[in-house]
Amino acid sequence: MADITHQSPFAPTHYPKIPNMAGVALHCFDGGFYHHQRNDILLMVFDAGTSAAGVMTQNQIIGEPIKWNRQYLPCDDMRGILINAGNANVCADGWGVAEDCAKACAGLLHCRHDHILLASTGVIGQKLNTEKIIQHLQPPYDSLKKTDWYSAASAIMTTDTFPKMAHRHIELSQGVINITGIAKGSGMIEPNMATMLSFISTDALLSPQECDVMLRQAVKNSFNSISVDSDTSTSDMVIFTATKQAFAPNNDHDWHLLQQSLNDLCLELALMVIGDGEGIKHRFKVTVSGCQSHDDAKKIARAIANSPLVKTAIAGEDANWGRIAMATGKAGVAFDQDRLSIAIANINIIDNGRLRDDYNEDILQPLLSQKDINIDVSVGNDIGNACVWGCDLTHEYININADYRS
Amino acid sequence: MADITHQSPFAPTHYPKIPNMAGVALHCFDGGFYHHQRNDILLMVFDAGTSAAGVMTQNQIIGEPIKWNRQYLPCDDMRGILINAGNANVCADGWGVAEDCAKACAGLLHCRHDHILLASTGVIGQKLNTEKIIQHLQPPYDSLKKTDWYSAASAIMTTDTFPKMAHRHIELSQGVINITGIAKGSGMIEPNMATMLSFISTDALLSPQECDVMLRQAVKNSFNSISVDSDTSTSDMVIFTATKQAFAPNNDHDWHLLQQSLNDLCLELALMVIGDGEGIKHRFKVTVSGCQSHDDAKKIARAIANSPLVKTAIAGEDANWGRIAMATGKAGVAFDQDRLSIAIANINIIDNGRLRDDYNEDILQPLLSQKDINIDVSVGNDIGNACVWGCDLTHEYININADYRS
Repeated sequence: MADITHQSPFAPTHYPKIPNMAGVALHCFDGGFYHHQRNDILLMVFDAGTSAAGVMTQNQIIGEPIKWNRQYLPCDDMRGILINAGNANVCADGWGVAEDCAKACAGLLHCRHDHILLASTGVIGQKLNTEKIIQHLQPPYDSLKKTDWYSAASAIMTTDTFPKMAHRHIELSQGVINITGIAKGSGMIEPNMATMLSFISTDALLSPQECDVMLRQAVKNSFNSISVDSDTSTSDMVIFTATKQAFAPNNDHDWHLLQQSLNDLCLELALMVIGDGEGIKHRFKVTVSGCQSHDDAKKIARAIANSPLVKTAIAGEDANWGRIAMATGKAGVAFDQDRLSIAIANINIIDNGRLRDDYNEDILQPLLSQKDINIDVSVGNDIGNACVWGCDLTHEYININADYRS
Repeated sequence: MADITHQSPFAPTHYPKIPNMAGVALHCFDGGFYHHQRNDILLMVFDAGTSAAGVMTQNQIIGEPIKWNRQYLPCDDMRGILINAGNANVCADGWGVAEDCAKACAGLLHCRHDHILLASTGVIGQKLNTEKIIQHLQPPYDSLKKTDWYSAASAIMTTDTFPKMAHRHIELSQGVINITGIAKGSGMIEPNMATMLSFISTDALLSPQECDVMLRQAVKNSFNSISVDSDTSTSDMVIFTATKQAFAPNNDHDWHLLQQSLNDLCLELALMVIGDGEGIKHRFKVTVSGCQSHDDAKKIARAIANSPLVKTAIAGEDANWGRIAMATGKAGVAFDQDRLSIAIANINIIDNGRLRDDYNEDILQPLLSQKDINIDVSVGNDIGNACVWGCDLTHEYININADYRS
């Protein structure tokens, strides 16, 4: 496995203290999936009556946990989520493994096994050793501090270089509610792919259907608007649970506030995932406007964010707007080349398809050493727009993904 | 600009002697687009009555030569193709430049300016200095040996590490005809993107429409089935000309033979382009079968060939079939995961969605050091299949595209 000694420049310098969440307990274990000592299993336990919804990978090849969860979501009495790092349980004859793990959890928590969700990340194609997990699912089980979110976020890391967590504290009309989320991003474990996982909980009183609608809305412009390398894992998932131990939204203002907070929290987590993209030195936000639809704008934004030539230019701190023009044009969206405008780091470069007379690369150049870079593209006067966040393509990416032997 | 000192491992060790082509003369000049001495302008001159057809980039942002050529192709009396390396004439207010160049060629060759085609590759967004070209387009103009295809193939290179040319000699029922092609591939010239150009000539007696149909057929499974980095240039083109100075195909067998030869020649040139992909160490051929349609198979093959995780695995000589499964599943084509089969370097790994009992990575491992690697994927029993050729993603790619300053 790659010797990854560099922490991402986007690692937070400090983590906020996140309060307990009523109705949620977090248990971490060392299942021995890694050679060194670390927690690699997280069991999230929920009080009875917890609502849950989820969104899963769109890959046609899926891990057994994805199959399992799709059967039971949304769910009105979710009692546990069992997550392991180190083995993804994909293409490894692992349906029985999934069943055994869920049944062991159900036994421990005295609930039905269809009230347990599963998530796995790590090696593909190797049989998951159930014993490594089940040995810990026996009463009395050791528990960490009830809601030590930092430990929980750490236990689901693969080659992430920092744990990812976010919290919102929201005053609804009836009282305060909390939303807390953790995520893991795209680190590689030889010999296999990375996985994006996120688990978000609230104490608000929400039905499974409400969770589902709110989560899909929030994911659209956060987790579904980022790209490290255009590759889609077989095991991606975001789960949203509501323990109902605090208040329900009571009016339109409450609903709006809650949705907005969930959107923000998902975006914060998603930007941490990008900020821990393999080998990242620069993160960039591509905003495309002037399209006939949001979907068209997102297609162009994705083409730019995924272009290897754009990503290497950002890595090289090179004001290479020609590559952005190229990627804009290759997205398969029709537009008038004479309406193209491009700005990098808020410096206007191209207007109406032509280089501006006042463009001076010497002014743009020093701005490209910033960690976060804006790329703004407009292709017309229509109202469709979209944002996608990406990261640069560096030697470290190649180091992590090619320069090792199994 | 990057210091590119390594020649691709796919550079030919010797070049065949390619005979003269009746009706074609090749002239190379040093226009001074590069700091060092080299020919960077090629003028291909054709006898009166030459048929021509072409296929152009699908990028929405296009260079002026693409706009120019689209007006006039197919054409039944093409007299010249003017090609320059070093400046792509894209997004640089260059329509007048294109007109001036075509008119200077037309003056030199005593023909109409709409019987001249143009191609440019190199920097985007900088005004092309017409004088650098036009100074050479005066009678009497210096000419290289009439059909020195090696010099011609060299004059259109940007950061290609070897010239690319191919030839076929075909016995039709009435007599022998020739097809000769040159191409340039994906080298980067800072600060801009690369371009794939190819110019193919035959002395066969073909109409412009026949050229057009045959070229589109040939391009489909050659130039349109390769990917260095998934980026599409604004200036890509393949032009096919027929000087009519030899024989016409006379029966179905002739037509079939000619089409097959053109297909083969295009594939040979396309594989050279891939073989000179930036930083290449390994070339791979992805064959996808068992799909409901050719288009579905090509979608999956492209997803695999363009996956950064697959490309880095090949660079690392890593038997990482999990990444191939991932890329197969992300292509947006529905299939049954339990029908998935994967072989790498002709070693069967996955059958019907499961790792084979007899799979032994120790046997596969040494095969991955080969320059050419086959990746075979099947997703069912249907007849749709497709091939796409790609290259690995190495440190050299990052060197060429990021590690320099303007």
